Amino acid sequence: MKFVIIGGDAAGMSAASRAKRNLPDLEVVVLEQTMDVSYSACGMPYNIAEPHREMDDLVVRQAQVFREKQGIDLRTGHRAEGLDRAAKMIAFRDMQGKETTLQYDKLLLATGASPAIPNLQGFDLPGVLALKSLEDGRMIKQFIRDRGVKRTVIIGMGYIALEMCEALRGNNMAVDMVKPRSVFIPWMNDKLSDMVKEEVETNQVGLHAGHEIQRIEETSEGLKVVCSDLELEGDMVLVAVGVTPNSQLAEQAGLDIGPGKSIAVDRTLRTSDKDIYAAGDCADAFHVVTGARTWIPLALRANRAGWAVADNITGKAVELEGIVGTAVFKVFDLEVARTGLSVAEAVKAGFDPAEAVITSRSRAHAHPGSTTLGIQVVGDRQTGRLLGMQIVGREGAAHRINAPAVALHQRMTVDAFSQCDLAYAPPFGPVWDPMLTAANQLLKKM
Amino acid sequence: MKFVIIGGDAAGMSAASRAKRNLPDLEVVVLEQTMDVSYSACGMPYNIAEPHREMDDLVVRQAQVFREKQGIDLRTGHRAEGLDRAAKMIAFRDMQGKETTLQYDKLLLATGASPAIPNLQGFDLPGVLALKSLEDGRMIKQFIRDRGVKRTVIIGMGYIALEMCEALRGNNMAVDMVKPRSVFIPWMNDKLSDMVKEEVETNQVGLHAGHEIQRIEETSEGLKVVCSDLELEGDMVLVAVGVTPNSQLAEQAGLDIGPGKSIAVDRTLRTSDKDIYAAGDCADAFHVVTGARTWIPLALRANRAGWAVADNITGKAVELEGIVGTAVFKVFDLEVARTGLSVAEAVKAGFDPAEAVITSRSRAHAHPGSTTLGIQVVGDRQTGRLLGMQIVGREGAAHRINAPAVALHQRMTVDAFSQCDLAYAPPFGPVWDPMLTAANQLLKKM
Repeated sequence: MKFVIIGGDAAGMSAASRAKRNLPDLEVVVLEQTMDVSYSACGMPYNIAEPHREMDDLVVRQAQVFREKQGIDLRTGHRAEGLDRAAKMIAFRDMQGKETTLQYDKLLLATGASPAIPNLQGFDLPGVLALKSLEDGRMIKQFIRDRGVKRTVIIGMGYIALEMCEALRGNNMAVDMVKPRSVFIPWMNDKLSDMVKEEVETNQVGLHAGHEIQRIEETSEGLKVVCSDLELEGDMVLVAVGVTPNSQLAEQAGLDIGPGKSIAVDRTLRTSDKDIYAAGDCADAFHVVTGARTWIPLALRANRAGWAVADNITGKAVELEGIVGTAVFKVFDLEVARTGLSVAEAVKAGFDPAEAVITSRSRAHAHPGSTTLGIQVVGDRQTGRLLGMQIVGREGAAHRINAPAVALHQRMTVDAFSQCDLAYAPPFGPVWDPMLTAANQLLKKM
Repeated sequence: MKFVIIGGDAAGMSAASRAKRNLPDLEVVVLEQTMDVSYSACGMPYNIAEPHREMDDLVVRQAQVFREKQGIDLRTGHRAEGLDRAAKMIAFRDMQGKETTLQYDKLLLATGASPAIPNLQGFDLPGVLALKSLEDGRMIKQFIRDRGVKRTVIIGMGYIALEMCEALRGNNMAVDMVKPRSVFIPWMNDKLSDMVKEEVETNQVGLHAGHEIQRIEETSEGLKVVCSDLELEGDMVLVAVGVTPNSQLAEQAGLDIGPGKSIAVDRTLRTSDKDIYAAGDCADAFHVVTGARTWIPLALRANRAGWAVADNITGKAVELEGIVGTAVFKVFDLEVARTGLSVAEAVKAGFDPAEAVITSRSRAHAHPGSTTLGIQVVGDRQTGRLLGMQIVGREGAAHRINAPAVALHQRMTVDAFSQCDLAYAPPFGPVWDPMLTAANQLLKKM
């Protein structure tokens, strides 16, 4: 049997390795359009923060290991260009432009996602850069070095934009951030969002939310982002307005498409074609809280889905339950975490949400070094179910979020969550963990 | 109705405050034998670490607030000495030695626990001290100051002993720890226990496990702990060999007694007498994983049980599900956390346990500042259930433990836990959270 995988990052290489481990005789071919495989895209902002580090440090496993130790037919610089489902055939082009075809028995689409680039004037100018592939990261690093970049304008305020702003400020660069919507972090409770905003502004980042971007211009000194009522100058412009799934191949081949133009898959990761799977940032997933399809590109899901595909094509039947939308990022000294639904998402999903927002100390009463932790918790008035949580703080926010994430997987009520025997010691929090205090507050409103 | 509470710390004062809030007309009397109420016993080692801080900083709420703002009849320096269930009467003695009696309609025993003191020669010498009440803490602090203590011997190696050893080393004191059993931390997996041991030894603490203590002697220079094959000298000896529940009053009155001589209570916190409740370190609890009664003194449980008693006597029916045995402590730069059962505890409870132990990096591949995280996970071969987890590391151990704690409350299988959508970002861990990696390893053994 021949297993062909399009895309050689997290989902693709996880699937390839596991498939060979499960079934050593299986023929596994991976077509990767770039020259890089199995790298940590999430690590790029942190690598860019260290000018003297090689971008290649982020490669988790070398192509050589995949080829020689694992016997995977890994073809980098090979771009898939067509999918003929009837003939079970992939058309692709190599670095020299040579076109070839390849038959498959089972196919995995692990094509990832690409940065969304607004269709506006000047977004193709040199120095206007986006961050997704390792090659993008190398270009940004080199541009910074070659041009001696001192000022950057970041378009977008999502978590990649915020991680990048920290990385650049760490190198003493002036940073302005700009976006059309006026709300700083739209999915976040206002009070918590203000905590993040304050942290970013304290670090001398110019935040300009609510400015429609019209174009980017070249100036004698560099680049200028022109908005209706604002102009921001920089040596470099980073575009981080979000990513879109690379689902063109699937769409052209007539496969079912899910939310946000992602490729629709069932719980076994199979697309609407029984011989074609999709996994990683190009594929959708079921949201455990809403029960509906959703598209949230996440590294853990990509790895897990890659494994599940490998298991399913090698004879183990694996179904993935779904995701609860757990995410975390760091911006300067602040940890920002969420799981489940915001109030707006809960309303949209048909729940009748109530929320509680508290601030608490990060350590026990009278324990030195305490900082402020902000927690928002959302529950459903009708069923009593816990629907989501958001946590912001200088310590203990990132890892705390895993407790409500588990609770969401178990469809726990707020009441049941509030009864959990959570850890306590003075260096790590108050006797009542702030998550319990938030849950207790929410119970009064439900 | 008159609600009498014996004991004015976490459980007692939580119950008193909440009962008055629920039912402002209720007569609430609290008898507390010391002069301190509502203080954080868990904070004492950290207070002792700061010689110039007042021990009173640990008082969470002042007696005055309870009396004047909340209308609680709080009587400090009043020691309960007898309980006549037939007459519903408490006999007590005040600071002047005057004996009186008090009638109750509902009684709460919140008498806490006391340090176990070995019945050996010399344990009553000046400078041989134990840590439980705020007064004990004051005495230790004053003894250190007055005598200029330079060397301390700690008897015991439990978490209070370890927290104290950190506090004393932080003040540049020489510290030896000694105990009869040869295993360093008996409930902990060997590999993880070795990580803790190394941390303690790196901080120049003398660890002497496996030495039977015979007596303590006075010497010309201070004190000497004499073991069969070892003598340890110090200016001060701290006894931290564990605590025992203060259940004498209950036992004498013929109430049912639970594990470890704790007072047996049902899920409503009621003892075998329908008008008498018990809560806090003197009372037992149901263990959610084993379903059996257990005695694990924990601050959160004490507070929660105090609330539940108040609710139950004021007309709301509250049942507590039980505990899963979540605990965490810090020793030097290491966080040590556990929830659920060890392998030995699982065997004893009738399970057929398998365990997996892994070490992992605390941050993502190539992320700077990473340290080692050690995780042990225990599951039941028969049912697939998750039974327990232990985590040791310099960052992310304490708060991570809450995720498996929630899973234990929900009786999740290891497989279901391994499928959870946990948080990932490079500063906080690898893509597969180490808890998931440990669970995946365990699944192979089950």
